[in-house]
Amino acid sequence: MDLIEKTLESHVVYDGGFLKVSKDRVVLPDGSLAWREYVRHPGAVAILALTADGRLVLERQYRHAPGRVFLEIPAGKIDPHESTADTARRELLEETGLSAANWICLGTAHPCIGYADEEITYFLAQDLSQSERRLDEGEFLEVLTLPLDDVFAMALSGEICDSKSLVGLFWLRAHREGKLPGAAV
Amino acid sequence: MDLIEKTLESHVVYDGGFLKVSKDRVVLPDGSLAWREYVRHPGAVAILALTADGRLVLERQYRHAPGRVFLEIPAGKIDPHESTADTARRELLEETGLSAANWICLGTAHPCIGYADEEITYFLAQDLSQSERRLDEGEFLEVLTLPLDDVFAMALSGEICDSKSLVGLFWLRAHREGKLPGAAV
Repeated sequence: MDLIEKTLESHVVYDGGFLKVSKDRVVLPDGSLAWREYVRHPGAVAILALTADGRLVLERQYRHAPGRVFLEIPAGKIDPHESTADTARRELLEETGLSAANWICLGTAHPCIGYADEEITYFLAQDLSQSERRLDEGEFLEVLTLPLDDVFAMALSGEICDSKSLVGLFWLRAHREGKLPGAAV
Repeated sequence: MDLIEKTLESHVVYDGGFLKVSKDRVVLPDGSLAWREYVRHPGAVAILALTADGRLVLERQYRHAPGRVFLEIPAGKIDPHESTADTARRELLEETGLSAANWICLGTAHPCIGYADEEITYFLAQDLSQSERRLDEGEFLEVLTLPLDDVFAMALSGEICDSKSLVGLFWLRAHREGKLPGAAV
């Protein structure tokens, strides 16, 4: 069975500055027509920053859409013409004040295939050194570190329930077990 | 530091039938004002359906937003007034023709906290029996099963890169290791 949909036309139906929504006319595999609406996103990175003594860098941040504070790994959107590795270095520094001498790319995942074109590239950052953080205007978050075993336990107990962070922890655990080597950056 | 944002007003700025976008005026922790835009979603379920001989039920489906075919676990949106357990039973039957006698809830995750209020509740479905599937109109997907060890390997190699599925596989692996008992449904 051919599963592919062919795009006939594409329209930006909402552009609010932060979110951009497209609505496309597509031909389905059986030849019938349908509309597809989705968020257009520049892509993002997420960072598993591990200290020399085995603690993971986490952030506590209020997220308005779900309406609560989440414990999550550092992450941020790719700027125009920026590589994912450069985004990762920039976001880690801006949000936490940390630089890392050792970067490994663990993979790329799609957080929301039903209604967004976003993809998130994951990096492991090690050999950390601390300087000043420089949050974007209107950005409020607490930075903390926790022992990695505690973080893995929180990923199973419901205390960490942000999917972006859960995917990163799944891959970090596999990396530490030698099952996901990743690629040096 | 108080991280909470207070909502002053909320507007639906786009409602295209499939996607609904809200734009809210909020007070930030420092008293300044900002807009927050996000997708309003009814919530969803995802199902890890495991056969008696240790194979996982997967679907191959074209996703228009990212523009490619994904290998993913069965999932679907919650209908109005429907419990997540009922959604899981309905979606598994509709998409794969499978019923399960044994259901365990593994947890709930938020796939896209930056711009959607969606949450996904995960279920493990076992003691499966096969009947006819009944796809929604305009829904095209292939159903397949693969040995669970192969699926875990694909979650690390990039062959499975849908975050919803990766979170489910992380939790399923922990469940099978006795680290995430879950709750009988």
